[in-house]
Amino acid sequence: MPQIEFWYDFASTYSYLTAMRIGPLAEAAGVQVAYRPFLLGPIFKAQGLTTSPFAANPIKGRYMARDIGRIATARGLLFHVPAPFPAHSLAAARSAMVAEAEGWIEPFTRAVFAAEFAGREDIASTDVLGRIVSGLGHDPVRISTAAGTTENKAALRDRTEAAAAKDIFGAPTFLTEDGELFWGDDRLEQALAWANK
Amino acid sequence: MPQIEFWYDFASTYSYLTAMRIGPLAEAAGVQVAYRPFLLGPIFKAQGLTTSPFAANPIKGRYMARDIGRIATARGLLFHVPAPFPAHSLAAARSAMVAEAEGWIEPFTRAVFAAEFAGREDIASTDVLGRIVSGLGHDPVRISTAAGTTENKAALRDRTEAAAAKDIFGAPTFLTEDGELFWGDDRLEQALAWANK
Repeated sequence: MPQIEFWYDFASTYSYLTAMRIGPLAEAAGVQVAYRPFLLGPIFKAQGLTTSPFAANPIKGRYMARDIGRIATARGLLFHVPAPFPAHSLAAARSAMVAEAEGWIEPFTRAVFAAEFAGREDIASTDVLGRIVSGLGHDPVRISTAAGTTENKAALRDRTEAAAAKDIFGAPTFLTEDGELFWGDDRLEQALAWANK
Repeated sequence: MPQIEFWYDFASTYSYLTAMRIGPLAEAAGVQVAYRPFLLGPIFKAQGLTTSPFAANPIKGRYMARDIGRIATARGLLFHVPAPFPAHSLAAARSAMVAEAEGWIEPFTRAVFAAEFAGREDIASTDVLGRIVSGLGHDPVRISTAAGTTENKAALRDRTEAAAAKDIFGAPTFLTEDGELFWGDDRLEQALAWANK
């Protein structure tokens, strides 16, 4: 079965749109999805930005909220912009690395994005993350301990460096097995079609 | 008949994609298109950029070329990135203001974009613009004179200030009569559907 990698940061608004639909779309296309959580912060920093482009440029930020609002409505999804924006996604990303290693990254990813952008919850909160983890049948204390190890922190740093090495400059990004890169939720269909060529 | 405004700069690669398809798509949707040439330079300057975001960020620039190359191939269009990039679009924009006032802005717009991105021609060249103008049945000397008047230069400046006042931050941008803003060739279908609501 062909595969695509789905690269995302939990603070990324357009990645929310993708996370809520990539499972069924990829299944229908016969494509496997490899979830690749990473951090956009260092990527933006290398571009000379100290925050999200949507925070750096408020006009673009307001447009983003309107654009995603329209798309979310069409897809039957709730959507709000977290305040402050962007959300602090480091803790969620570290837990995601554990979930990835243990094989429950897909439901964890959907649950975190839904809590943040539909449920208006603070994904930097230990309580919120703990509730998500226990809702998926895992022990929050065990996961938070595993997320905080030196090895896991290094794994997330390596992942983010790998993103930069692959010329990933934003999220969501899709990478096919032959190295074709697609940026943005609106390129998901193209990426799946490419994977199936 | 509902109407959308199509705001573009001749240097904008994604505006090329739109210019080559908005006519038939809008006709099929029963929507009238108002062509609104403007200059992105002052808009980018207000964002703290001294050039196109694709020139300021070469990784994003390489992605843009690949992304548009894929889409152009799927649509049967030629595409190359002008060198130097972005092209100098001031002369073409001034002529476009004249074409708009005289009612031949649609074929002029398509011809300039096609010359630049398919024909590999320099749209800053008086010869190239003259050939486009005469190919549409107009006198190049008359048009170039009309384009260079103080009034016409001011009209283009006013147009660009109007873009900024409408929170336009990139191109192509589509504006519906009720003030809804859509950014990017990939939002054209949404804009047409909105205009028809």
